[in-house]
Amino acid sequence: MNQRASESIFSLGNGRFGQRANFEEQYSGDTLQGNYLAGVYYPDKTKVGWWKNGYPEYFAKVLNAPNWIGIDFRIDNEILDLAKCKILNFRRTLNMKEGYLQREYMVEMSSGIQIKALIIRFLSMADPEAAAIKYSIQPINFTGELTITSYLDAGIKNADANYNEFFWDIIAKDIERKRGFITSRTRKTDFDCCIGIDTSIRINGNKKNQIPESLEENNLIATEYRISMGENHEVSIYKYAAVLTSLYHEKSQLRKDTEKVLEGAVQSGFEKLFSVHKKKWKDIWEHSDITIEGDDEAQQGIRFNIFQLNQTYTGEDERLNIGPKGFTGEKYGGSTYWDTEAYCIPFFLCTASQNVSRNLLKYRHKQLDKAIENAKKLGFYGGAALYPMVTMNGEECHNEWEITFEEIHRNGAIAFAIFNYIRHTGDYTYLHDHGLEVLIALSRFWKQRVNYSMDKEQYVILGVTGPNEYENNVNNNWYTNTIASWTLTYTMEVLRYLKSKHPDNYDSIIKKTSFREDEEIKSWQEIADKLYFPIDEELNVFLQQEGYLDKEQMLADQLDPEQKPINQHWSWDRILRSCFIKQADVLQGIYLFEDRYDTETIRRNFNFYESRTVHESSLSPCVHSILASRIGDIIKAYALYLRTSRLDLDDYNDEVHEGLHITSMAGTWMSVVEGFGGKRIKNGKLVLNPLIPKNWESYSFKINFRNSLLKIFVTNEEIKISLLDKKEISLLIYGKEYQLTGNKEIKVPQMNFFTGKK
Amino acid sequence: MNQRASESIFSLGNGRFGQRANFEEQYSGDTLQGNYLAGVYYPDKTKVGWWKNGYPEYFAKVLNAPNWIGIDFRIDNEILDLAKCKILNFRRTLNMKEGYLQREYMVEMSSGIQIKALIIRFLSMADPEAAAIKYSIQPINFTGELTITSYLDAGIKNADANYNEFFWDIIAKDIERKRGFITSRTRKTDFDCCIGIDTSIRINGNKKNQIPESLEENNLIATEYRISMGENHEVSIYKYAAVLTSLYHEKSQLRKDTEKVLEGAVQSGFEKLFSVHKKKWKDIWEHSDITIEGDDEAQQGIRFNIFQLNQTYTGEDERLNIGPKGFTGEKYGGSTYWDTEAYCIPFFLCTASQNVSRNLLKYRHKQLDKAIENAKKLGFYGGAALYPMVTMNGEECHNEWEITFEEIHRNGAIAFAIFNYIRHTGDYTYLHDHGLEVLIALSRFWKQRVNYSMDKEQYVILGVTGPNEYENNVNNNWYTNTIASWTLTYTMEVLRYLKSKHPDNYDSIIKKTSFREDEEIKSWQEIADKLYFPIDEELNVFLQQEGYLDKEQMLADQLDPEQKPINQHWSWDRILRSCFIKQADVLQGIYLFEDRYDTETIRRNFNFYESRTVHESSLSPCVHSILASRIGDIIKAYALYLRTSRLDLDDYNDEVHEGLHITSMAGTWMSVVEGFGGKRIKNGKLVLNPLIPKNWESYSFKINFRNSLLKIFVTNEEIKISLLDKKEISLLIYGKEYQLTGNKEIKVPQMNFFTGKK
Repeated sequence: MNQRASESIFSLGNGRFGQRANFEEQYSGDTLQGNYLAGVYYPDKTKVGWWKNGYPEYFAKVLNAPNWIGIDFRIDNEILDLAKCKILNFRRTLNMKEGYLQREYMVEMSSGIQIKALIIRFLSMADPEAAAIKYSIQPINFTGELTITSYLDAGIKNADANYNEFFWDIIAKDIERKRGFITSRTRKTDFDCCIGIDTSIRINGNKKNQIPESLEENNLIATEYRISMGENHEVSIYKYAAVLTSLYHEKSQLRKDTEKVLEGAVQSGFEKLFSVHKKKWKDIWEHSDITIEGDDEAQQGIRFNIFQLNQTYTGEDERLNIGPKGFTGEKYGGSTYWDTEAYCIPFFLCTASQNVSRNLLKYRHKQLDKAIENAKKLGFYGGAALYPMVTMNGEECHNEWEITFEEIHRNGAIAFAIFNYIRHTGDYTYLHDHGLEVLIALSRFWKQRVNYSMDKEQYVILGVTGPNEYENNVNNNWYTNTIASWTLTYTMEVLRYLKSKHPDNYDSIIKKTSFREDEEIKSWQEIADKLYFPIDEELNVFLQQEGYLDKEQMLADQLDPEQKPINQHWSWDRILRSCFIKQADVLQGIYLFEDRYDTETIRRNFNFYESRTVHESSLSPCVHSILASRIGDIIKAYALYLRTSRLDLDDYNDEVHEGLHITSMAGTWMSVVEGFGGKRIKNGKLVLNPLIPKNWESYSFKINFRNSLLKIFVTNEEIKISLLDKKEISLLIYGKEYQLTGNKEIKVPQMNFFTGKK
Repeated sequence: MNQRASESIFSLGNGRFGQRANFEEQYSGDTLQGNYLAGVYYPDKTKVGWWKNGYPEYFAKVLNAPNWIGIDFRIDNEILDLAKCKILNFRRTLNMKEGYLQREYMVEMSSGIQIKALIIRFLSMADPEAAAIKYSIQPINFTGELTITSYLDAGIKNADANYNEFFWDIIAKDIERKRGFITSRTRKTDFDCCIGIDTSIRINGNKKNQIPESLEENNLIATEYRISMGENHEVSIYKYAAVLTSLYHEKSQLRKDTEKVLEGAVQSGFEKLFSVHKKKWKDIWEHSDITIEGDDEAQQGIRFNIFQLNQTYTGEDERLNIGPKGFTGEKYGGSTYWDTEAYCIPFFLCTASQNVSRNLLKYRHKQLDKAIENAKKLGFYGGAALYPMVTMNGEECHNEWEITFEEIHRNGAIAFAIFNYIRHTGDYTYLHDHGLEVLIALSRFWKQRVNYSMDKEQYVILGVTGPNEYENNVNNNWYTNTIASWTLTYTMEVLRYLKSKHPDNYDSIIKKTSFREDEEIKSWQEIADKLYFPIDEELNVFLQQEGYLDKEQMLADQLDPEQKPINQHWSWDRILRSCFIKQADVLQGIYLFEDRYDTETIRRNFNFYESRTVHESSLSPCVHSILASRIGDIIKAYALYLRTSRLDLDDYNDEVHEGLHITSMAGTWMSVVEGFGGKRIKNGKLVLNPLIPKNWESYSFKINFRNSLLKIFVTNEEIKISLLDKKEISLLIYGKEYQLTGNKEIKVPQMNFFTGKK
């Protein structure tokens, strides 16, 4: 598992495609090969034990795509294979600043020949269809023939294919000496992908004009060099790849366009291609870096997370989204979850141009018809939408009834993201462009999903799974009811706003959605007024769901450590019966609607629920860390921050071999900026309430707020805030308003703890 | 589907093996081939979408076993295939009185040759390892060669194999002219099955000494006769089969023993074998027949049910049980469910010797260790047992968490069956032989499965699925709480009884089970005293579960008929949220513990719940019919009876093609005997309160009660009761005690409606 874990950790990506840190040369040890293409998926036939009406028949999966990195070496008839060598020296480096993977090794083959190598690989951020490898290899004390086979292999499978099927057909391939191409087509979805490779060599730094052989097998093309090596000769292999898909090119032009991109890369040459790429990463870090002084591990952790998020999504294409594993593994299908709205949008809002988040919102708007269709399959009508739990193209992929059909709070996250986007950017145009249409469909869903309880004489929401998936099919989950009620209220607010400010837009949306203004608003208002919320009067906490207090009450720290994580040790009924919480549920609601509650209420609920939370979701600690900061509990906030920031680097849950937790990395970023930094938006203004963990000397972060880039630097003594452009902005620090102008720094003394006043 | 449905309906079985009514000759139309062997199963690898801890990896399936019935005909180089012929005449008859299948047809082949045939097939009830076919065939206006190929095919699969695998390996085969054998072995479970076939022919009634050819293929052996046919010649093929398994024979002797059985059958000859078989059926009907005059369809329905139950289980072997589909199809794996305890035991208690029911109880006792192991997997300890939801060998097969882990009321049914057996038979020895051991393990389970709610200050049972599987993961299901509490109380009662009456046995059980007498009894008593039961004071009904009245209340007859059955039209969440009930839940409890409730209470609960019940389980109408009789609502009782008695014959739910609903057939019997007949046991006495549906002239049934056989004959005017043996018995009819002695009939006037007095 160690090799697989490293392959995940050292993954590269450029938003368009991604590559696990698999070795170029043959490797017979344990490995999970992975090259993934943004937006290219395959609907694998699902495996279902007990079919329920409404289940989808297919699960869209991220595709393991043709392998372009392969370079095999044969020396004295022995294939170089690190699993079979004596390792003298091995080092893998992920250069996050400049975005490349470097590998150095020195090994002894069974023949006794020693090999020294240095490999650099990058996926260009500047030209997202190009990638390059420089593989320098030096057989020591060896004279004789070295065979180098640089190949492109399209005969690949997904390790997680349900029925061990091939997802690709090869439709064309050609090779001529040093350059070759394979075009593959996905079954069922008909995506075309053309990959071209070009391999040349230098010996001791000199161009070698030796003409290679071309090889062609069933699923594979290759360029083969046979070189007579003198003693201590060093060969450098330059392998360029162009990776194009039919998402961005006409199928008929794909082969030609691939050659164009490949030729461009070859013409640029390795060094130039590399330096343009590094420049792009410099820009990214200028907008999104977080520095931490006095805590190297925390520093490394946060940068790793920012790096991986930027490798996964660059935000130019509204058809793309962010899978929980990004381009680093197959699991969870690389599909879209509510993680995007709940975690990634807050990250991209602050660290990238507003278009990036707008595109993430538009992704859902584009899929509105499918969400309406999905709701219809479950018995809803009249334009009500239920967005899927997991999706690639808008269709539901998941098939666990308690999740697929019942974890409906995801609809709320999609509404909240619209609100959050506008609150942060001030871009109200989104509401009439796309937002209201989505909000109406969501509110229609909630309208039909509640029912009136004669017993309670209130509306109720029965049979749901909240964010805490360790409870299924519960009644009146406080969080779900909260976000449902808020969605109805917010939709009505947006309707009023557009009606008065943009009547023409309003009218056209009303028409498009067949909105029955009086009737629908009336019913929504009635539900918002009369929705039931479970509360325990005695403890004075919101109740996660009805009956939560009938459970045997225990605290997470009373759990036998050998029983943890409980999801690996307990049967599902036992988990469901227990009071233990997987991830923020009531607290997720308090986090989203913090303004509604005074600090004491937040603290009471935090203390009650956090102590029952086992944090067995990667998305759990960050929200808790933010709330711990909010109530001034910096020790707890820091402890929870540690659980999230190095989750993958330290592989807490022994699962990194499957890929990285990309979306939860945004949560880590949130726990610094919203947690320690106390970043909020209130009444259109940026608000900061920075705390600092005791062992940190300083930390800094950057925020893009309404097209101004601010840098916030926090020490134990003071907060320094500067604008990195020439604009002007007013903001609140510790509740006091400041006016910030271009390049003039503001200094505010550090308040060691947050007073808790609103 | 019609052919498959008929293949189910006309199935034959003899308790040891079963055969769907597949054609002997080749048939290219739609068909589900099926020959099943009692106790022989295969653990097929499960198909699971989302794995949960505690799921079993295998699902034990009833096995489609080698096909011994096949007889192919070739005439003028055309294979006889009814799917390709013009059908001039076709009739299939299931002779339930004498237990055989008869088929007559007249068809025209594409060559124009007309064929007339008469086939009789039976599986011997007298020698449960033997079967015979007589196939008489007469090609009309044909002169030429007729080829008859009688074969045994071991290359069979299960249609429901999850991964399309073979479950059998052939380990030996041999054939010599008219007689051949194949021994097959199941993969993984290593059951051996040897089948021998012997085929001879007569022409125009005369023995034909023609020596046949032997054929042998990979998975198949065959005997082939080529006959020169004169005009209107009739050939009769006598095919005998011996079907033996390693459950009853040493593997090393299996081939030899099979030949012995086969030779015995051949020596007897068809007619003698047949008449001994018919005699057995005569005995069965003498003990279990129900007659109904004035309603032919009802008469046919009930006899069909009694016939199929007797074909499925004969009760001699405690290793066998009754699968919901018996030997008539693959679905539900032919495994044991709580159907056995809840439905089949009441049937066999009255219609067979007490040993039959005792063996069904012993089946569970034999599996107690596995049930304890199963509970352990789910976190229980100290000898607590959770019997599996579905099993073949004591191990759990099912894998839906809401059923497998949460439908725990099955444990209650197993306890109740012990009580029921003793109540009916008076055989208290079962308690110290096996019963108490099981009861202790069940009570230990309930003890651990409850928890104390600080909120309610009572014990609660959280996260269960009741008999109404249209509710999952509910809290305090009234039925489950009722049966749990009763089990604790009954176990304590049995402990007290054995301690005082059989102290030696008591001591040895205490020792064997490491029973901590004071401590365990104290905790059980505390739970029995303080268990919470949901009740609605206003409606004055028991609540199916907490929160049931928060649902939108609708009645089943308000449902759009196009939406029925809801389990085929609604998504699972919608079913769960609705108030609709699949099968008796609260009413199952009232049925079991009827004595606790006055008629008004029963009526109130019946009216409330039955009107919300969609009866989408074959097990549903019978319990409701019994309770409708109990409250004197004969019209409702009769309507519900009709839904159960001809369920398969009329294929209400379009699912008979998968097999028959064997276990629910016992429910039909119950609705006559316990419903219309009002049969109960109270204080060790048989109680009858007969009603009669208006359109029936009379009905009669037999009851074996404490080794006396009673016949009850009911008309609109009177009840006639006689003892069919020379014993003496006292019983209560309409609340009045009568003394019945051998062969002296008692007559009691019919009371047109039940007064409702207890």
